[in-house]
Amino acid sequence: MSTIPNPNAVASHALADLAERFGLELRGDGDHRVASVATLGEAGPGAVTFLANRAYRPQLAETRAGAVILREADAADCPVNVLVAGDPYLAYARIATLFDPRPVPSPGIDPAASVHEAAVIGQDVAVCAGAVVGSGAIIGDGAIIGPGCVVAPGVTLGAGSHLVANVTLCDGVRLGLRVLVHPGAVIGADGFGIARGPEGWEKVPQLGGVVVGDDCEIGANSCIDRGAIGDTVLEADVRIDNHVQIGHNCHVGAHTAMAAFTGISGSTRIGRNCLFAGRSGAYGHIEIADGVTVSAMTMVSKDITEPGSTWSGGIPARPLREWQRSLAQLSRLAKKRRGPHQTKGKNNE
Amino acid sequence: MSTIPNPNAVASHALADLAERFGLELRGDGDHRVASVATLGEAGPGAVTFLANRAYRPQLAETRAGAVILREADAADCPVNVLVAGDPYLAYARIATLFDPRPVPSPGIDPAASVHEAAVIGQDVAVCAGAVVGSGAIIGDGAIIGPGCVVAPGVTLGAGSHLVANVTLCDGVRLGLRVLVHPGAVIGADGFGIARGPEGWEKVPQLGGVVVGDDCEIGANSCIDRGAIGDTVLEADVRIDNHVQIGHNCHVGAHTAMAAFTGISGSTRIGRNCLFAGRSGAYGHIEIADGVTVSAMTMVSKDITEPGSTWSGGIPARPLREWQRSLAQLSRLAKKRRGPHQTKGKNNE
Amino acid sequence: MSTIPNPNAVASHALADLAERFGLELRGDGDHRVASVATLGEAGPGAVTFLANRAYRPQLAETRAGAVILREADAADCPVNVLVAGDPYLAYARIATLFDPRPVPSPGIDPAASVHEAAVIGQDVAVCAGAVVGSGAIIGDGAIIGPGCVVAPGVTLGAGSHLVANVTLCDGVRLGLRVLVHPGAVIGADGFGIARGPEGWEKVPQLGGVVVGDDCEIGANSCIDRGAIGDTVLEADVRIDNHVQIGHNCHVGAHTAMAAFTGISGSTRIGRNCLFAGRSGAYGHIEIADGVTVSAMTMVSKDITEPGSTWSGGIPARPLREWQRSLAQLSRLAKKRRGPHQTKGKNNE
Repeated sequence: MSTIPNPNAVASHALADLAERFGLELRGDGDHRVASVATLGEAGPGAVTFLANRAYRPQLAETRAGAVILREADAADCPVNVLVAGDPYLAYARIATLFDPRPVPSPGIDPAASVHEAAVIGQDVAVCAGAVVGSGAIIGDGAIIGPGCVVAPGVTLGAGSHLVANVTLCDGVRLGLRVLVHPGAVIGADGFGIARGPEGWEKVPQLGGVVVGDDCEIGANSCIDRGAIGDTVLEADVRIDNHVQIGHNCHVGAHTAMAAFTGISGSTRIGRNCLFAGRSGAYGHIEIADGVTVSAMTMVSKDITEPGSTWSGGIPARPLREWQRSLAQLSRLAKKRRGPHQTKGKNNE
Repeated sequence: MSTIPNPNAVASHALADLAERFGLELRGDGDHRVASVATLGEAGPGAVTFLANRAYRPQLAETRAGAVILREADAADCPVNVLVAGDPYLAYARIATLFDPRPVPSPGIDPAASVHEAAVIGQDVAVCAGAVVGSGAIIGDGAIIGPGCVVAPGVTLGAGSHLVANVTLCDGVRLGLRVLVHPGAVIGADGFGIARGPEGWEKVPQLGGVVVGDDCEIGANSCIDRGAIGDTVLEADVRIDNHVQIGHNCHVGAHTAMAAFTGISGSTRIGRNCLFAGRSGAYGHIEIADGVTVSAMTMVSKDITEPGSTWSGGIPARPLREWQRSLAQLSRLAKKRRGPHQTKGKNNE
Repeated sequence: MSTIPNPNAVASHALADLAERFGLELRGDGDHRVASVATLGEAGPGAVTFLANRAYRPQLAETRAGAVILREADAADCPVNVLVAGDPYLAYARIATLFDPRPVPSPGIDPAASVHEAAVIGQDVAVCAGAVVGSGAIIGDGAIIGPGCVVAPGVTLGAGSHLVANVTLCDGVRLGLRVLVHPGAVIGADGFGIARGPEGWEKVPQLGGVVVGDDCEIGANSCIDRGAIGDTVLEADVRIDNHVQIGHNCHVGAHTAMAAFTGISGSTRIGRNCLFAGRSGAYGHIEIADGVTVSAMTMVSKDITEPGSTWSGGIPARPLREWQRSLAQLSRLAKKRRGPHQTKGKNNE
């Protein structure tokens, strides 16, 4: 596994250059050079940092950073050089790409990779040791297939995509451009389709594929199942954290993001720009409007038709005794004799 | 990774042949041929489809399918050819196997596989590139060991079993016949056994194995831990979705099915024909009767002795404000002074 | 994948030797020999067993074991040889290590492994078939890199560490001594860092690494993300079960243990000796004191400052109808007109 240093990683940048390149307003010494990023509390004079989360505001007065990316409103209280940004976190994200020292596999097919002769490999593709690429797979220019990855026959990988390591793409998977897939993720495994027969379960063939749009990111050990009939679809720029499950024939709209342990059961249709917090999800062949937020530990079980609405159902931790009392009261309520105006139907939610 | 087309996949089937082969009643043109499956809404004249879920009933009148598999009661409203079935979903599952174009690895040991000379390999076994088979492993006839799979020393794999890709079977694992294991699944990893010692945790050796019965299916990235003493056991025809966790020394009865994120902690004994919905589970060294259903997001913490009962504990998502009010009331209830007839014991559920 | 038998595994041990070696008090025949471990109910005369959990006390009178490890208080009721221990489970854990027959890969680099010439490999290291070790990786003496594992460039693996199989260690990961990592675990994948830009999400570079202390154990298919800035840290002797998620820049104190599906979101700071039960977790950039216990299915969302406290929020399963009534009452409560002393603020917990 040969690697080359990230070509973006350079020694240092003058603050004036950063301001110009990223459209920020500089207040301070434009010739000051920074060579790394660090947190507000830990940054020294050679590092650039940022202030976005209110919780860290008290640290501003003590910072020794080379420069702080912050909002106009915070600038006056900053004791060091300032880069004013409308969205400091976004500006930080862009600047940080300049200081990324992480190694990237260099183009070429490692002798310890196994690439089928009938695979189609683009320009400047890297296939690392232990990777397996099947017959008829089509690998776009500049793609990286990391060590231990399996690309099944017929898979399509868009240009600039990157499978980090030990990723599995099953047959019938098509990734768009610049898709990033983290280790252990599995795309295109069978959906969970079983039918009761006279002797036990019978498997329902899972004949569809998975289409993943441009610029999607799929977290470590996440699974996106193939469709049963027709494809499971992620539109462009869907961002998936680790340990996420997306069932067969789901459709996830562009720019939707899902945090760890999100679970979406089969045939759910999710809008654009939705946010699913950790351990949230949806089940029941439902449809969710654009821009919906689902809180942590919350499972949606009915259609959500109101765009931009927020849904919740999780219980924050309480001291044990207090929670035991809540549970006991909940049980007691359930056993209360129903009053004359309370119909059975109301209880069957 | 050479592959051969699925031998079942043929050009097309006459409806009369399908009816005869699968014991269905045909109403319509027996000479009409279908060559694929599709959803009720999308099927054209060359495809067969089905109607099982009431939710899709309204689409029936508009279907352009070559034939619809449906119940007797729905037949009169179908504008196209009909295949009447007692269980349309099951009939569909069987017919769909005829139209499965998915590639299957061809028998043989890939030069890029690593098979120990002391492994015992049956007839017509496929071992794909990047797979590793250890000493003393016994691989049944017709088994498929997909790319990147690890089969530890001494593992037994029944005839017709299929490890799709990047599967890990640890030492002490024995799979029955026709077991299907999806990518990233781990069978036989150590159970979570630790004992507090004077200096910190001490590991409790996990000395048992895992026995998986015939016709089981294990989902992507699921884990079935080895026993601490004695084996973890899945009886025949257990169906496990993705991201499922089965702890050490569990015993799961035949035909039980578990949806994604189900978690069963160690030494749980589960009956036959149980259903665990998504994100459900059980903990506490308990026993669960046959035919029990556990709803989504529900954790069983006590023995369930009544066969066929349904248990629940999940909270469906609510609009944020409404849920915040429920939580506040729940807190308030917990703080209510306990009345004279309410003993402390009752609160310690 | 050549293996050697565990050098600890011997034919049998005399009870007197076990008593002396592990500091236990023997009551019975010191010459009696045992050659395996078994459960209280299943042990025969050739096996040693233990009694720690009260639930199994009724089986004691019927045991046919060669010896039972138990507490002083239980000794009088034991019909067979006794090894008295202050902590029978801990004593069992130690004795069981003598009867571990599990195969261990033998030192050496398998010809089917891929080890970069610029990796630094210690004495008696085993690198198994299908493993990939990158440039600049440093592998400590006696470490085992199991089949299919990926060790990225620059990773450090402490002496005696063991990656079982199909493990991924990304660049920037440093494991301490004797760290045990189970199959499918991913250490050092990118944290979930995205910032909203004008055209969609923009990735926040994840530039930190992961530091894992001595004697940690990481379960199958668990993920520990790299830091965004600075490292994610596990102190020594942290014990992690399967399917656990630890977000970027978390800090987990020594001896803390987490059961399956625990999820810790980014930048959480967790004390020493904490216990997280199954499907528990924490989110919200919070801090948790030493010795805190978090119950099953419980998510902590605020700082916990009281050491040794227990927190809860999970709902034990109820019969479906009973739970439906609880939910209905909960909804009804949320709709109750707020009384004069109830401010809006109180509802916004």
